[in-house]
Amino acid sequence: MEYILSERVKTLKPSAIREIFKYAADPSVVSLSAGNPAPEAFPVKEIAEISNTIFTENPIAALQYSVTEGYPALRNAVGNYMKTKYNVGRDFDELIITSGAQQVMDLITKATVNEGDTIICEAPSFIGSLNSFRSYHARLCGIPLESDGMNIDCLEKALQTEKNVRFIYIIANFQNPSGVTTSLAKRRKIYELAKKYNVMILEDNPYGELRISGEDVPSIKSFDEDGIVAYVGSFSKILSPGMRLGYVIAPKPIVQKMIVCKQGEDVHTNIWAQMVAEKFMTEYDFEAHLRRLREIYRKKANFCMQLLDEYLVPNKITYQPIEGGLFIWCKLPDGVDMNDFCQQAVLRKVCVVPGNAFLTDESEQCSSFRINFSTPTDEQLEKGIQILGNLAKEVL
Amino acid sequence: MEYILSERVKTLKPSAIREIFKYAADPSVVSLSAGNPAPEAFPVKEIAEISNTIFTENPIAALQYSVTEGYPALRNAVGNYMKTKYNVGRDFDELIITSGAQQVMDLITKATVNEGDTIICEAPSFIGSLNSFRSYHARLCGIPLESDGMNIDCLEKALQTEKNVRFIYIIANFQNPSGVTTSLAKRRKIYELAKKYNVMILEDNPYGELRISGEDVPSIKSFDEDGIVAYVGSFSKILSPGMRLGYVIAPKPIVQKMIVCKQGEDVHTNIWAQMVAEKFMTEYDFEAHLRRLREIYRKKANFCMQLLDEYLVPNKITYQPIEGGLFIWCKLPDGVDMNDFCQQAVLRKVCVVPGNAFLTDESEQCSSFRINFSTPTDEQLEKGIQILGNLAKEVL
Repeated sequence: MEYILSERVKTLKPSAIREIFKYAADPSVVSLSAGNPAPEAFPVKEIAEISNTIFTENPIAALQYSVTEGYPALRNAVGNYMKTKYNVGRDFDELIITSGAQQVMDLITKATVNEGDTIICEAPSFIGSLNSFRSYHARLCGIPLESDGMNIDCLEKALQTEKNVRFIYIIANFQNPSGVTTSLAKRRKIYELAKKYNVMILEDNPYGELRISGEDVPSIKSFDEDGIVAYVGSFSKILSPGMRLGYVIAPKPIVQKMIVCKQGEDVHTNIWAQMVAEKFMTEYDFEAHLRRLREIYRKKANFCMQLLDEYLVPNKITYQPIEGGLFIWCKLPDGVDMNDFCQQAVLRKVCVVPGNAFLTDESEQCSSFRINFSTPTDEQLEKGIQILGNLAKEVL
Repeated sequence: MEYILSERVKTLKPSAIREIFKYAADPSVVSLSAGNPAPEAFPVKEIAEISNTIFTENPIAALQYSVTEGYPALRNAVGNYMKTKYNVGRDFDELIITSGAQQVMDLITKATVNEGDTIICEAPSFIGSLNSFRSYHARLCGIPLESDGMNIDCLEKALQTEKNVRFIYIIANFQNPSGVTTSLAKRRKIYELAKKYNVMILEDNPYGELRISGEDVPSIKSFDEDGIVAYVGSFSKILSPGMRLGYVIAPKPIVQKMIVCKQGEDVHTNIWAQMVAEKFMTEYDFEAHLRRLREIYRKKANFCMQLLDEYLVPNKITYQPIEGGLFIWCKLPDGVDMNDFCQQAVLRKVCVVPGNAFLTDESEQCSSFRINFSTPTDEQLEKGIQILGNLAKEVL
């Protein structure tokens, strides 16, 4: 039989990172290509304890069908937390629980983007989101990312010239892959431009709680008095990615349609996970847990940056120091073939992610690659960066 | 701000059943409108025990990111089970785990259906699937369902006249909402027609294990030597719907694209649930559990049919006896306003689902309504059907 595929998926490819994972699965290879939280960051004892309590006290609720919008107690807990701590959420907003933040990318695109419509993104940006947008045949328009956020002139030009722009996608804190944090001035400017051109903002904040230095910058959603920002949060980096828990806080007309789409997509999110997260947020010391996480990642990030200073920087590879998140963006000298460098690294048993994987057009020139420091052990990190340094010394 | 919605969701409505649930939430109302498994059907003790073992022995695997295709051990367990017990799955097929069977409806539509393409369904059919198809702007073509399955002449005519038919959607066992089981002769005929017209079959089998009388009928997928059937299974009715676990067994070219779409939709399915299901299938007496379920539902279904015989049939409401599943389809005399009857039932504190909710065109005439017997207690069931009988006696 000739299998007929829809136009929207014909050009859709598995993420380049997935392909790299095939090499990374070899235990002799040091993988700096993943984005997994450090295993020691999981509150295993607490989750086991909560799960046990749920199955003792309320097992049917944890196993039966639940509602599409999410477990009411968790919606309340997250809503209160985000309002109290970050001033996110207004009366015109609604909060729903999703199957990971990834599902928000899917649902909001389904609900607001026609095939051929445009989504503006940072360039580079998170490949998982870009692929979700692509799966609805959206046109992606990448705006160059500078050390303090998107180039504002390019953004305004895109808003003026692109047709049917539906939203601006931004990871404002410790962006994946670049590590960039958008400055407050640029956040305000982006907000004003979105308002001026009647375009929504999709603010994705998976790493916001993982700041290791400097001061928190208010999220764009925190000054959204006009109902133009959809804010996306995730439990993947602060509790467990395997649970697949995320949420969106956005104006009701948008969220209402996302709920209908979610009904047709997975009915509701695994309810056991929602109950565990709720109890963890409300009956345990959630803030102490976050402090512990930040301590884990502060140590790992600082160790990684020391290694980069020692092995890569003297060999012509530069990087922008980070204030949080899980990734560091390393840049090769201009004119060097980055993909060739990454392939040579694989031959020497170190995996990093070639930077062009994160571009809206993967065939564009890119001289950077992404390093992750949360997944490898300290020993693996040191070994991997040493190998990269030796390679750089030889070929750059 | 003026919120712009995509064309595909503009006409999308929450399922009518959801709206009915608002009445059903009133504790004084007897709900015969749900589709929840009986609470006593959940293997609570076993799930609690397995969960405890997982968090003792292998907590990181249950909390960390996992692979999009699904937990390998569960894929194996389900694949072996379906091959050994039902002869489902060939070398050209691939099996992946999804976030409920509902996600298969979404993913296969995304991967194979362009906006405006046609999906052929039984009329009536499962509203959750229809809404998923609608969410990609598919055109739905309903084929009248007879007591032994679709009207074959209508099906062939539709295959001849409809443009760009992408697949035929069928629930062959104890169909939701009609309770109909498609005969083996019609299954073979539908398969031959699909092959002749080069159209896939999407065979959804959530209730197949819940047969209470008669003999199993081979699934269409069991005689698929041509690679034209996508088979969908679910853990919702045999383990727990709150876990959101389903699977699809379909030709590799289709499944490969579904995997890429799933990556963009929720990355992977909750891994704890997958680990629990795998251990339950392989380390416990799964067949004994299924026998126990069938016993529960046999009692409930027979009790329900007795009540229908006692209270409704003498008052001009007919029904087709079922051999399994969770639903019974009741028919009012021709010419009676079914929606009016259902509304009057609500005023008397009984909820059923008006049959037109399950049609591809909800505005079509329909004189049937759906009753569920798995969720209410015996007392509630008796009370609800008595009220319906009294109403029928008065108004029919």
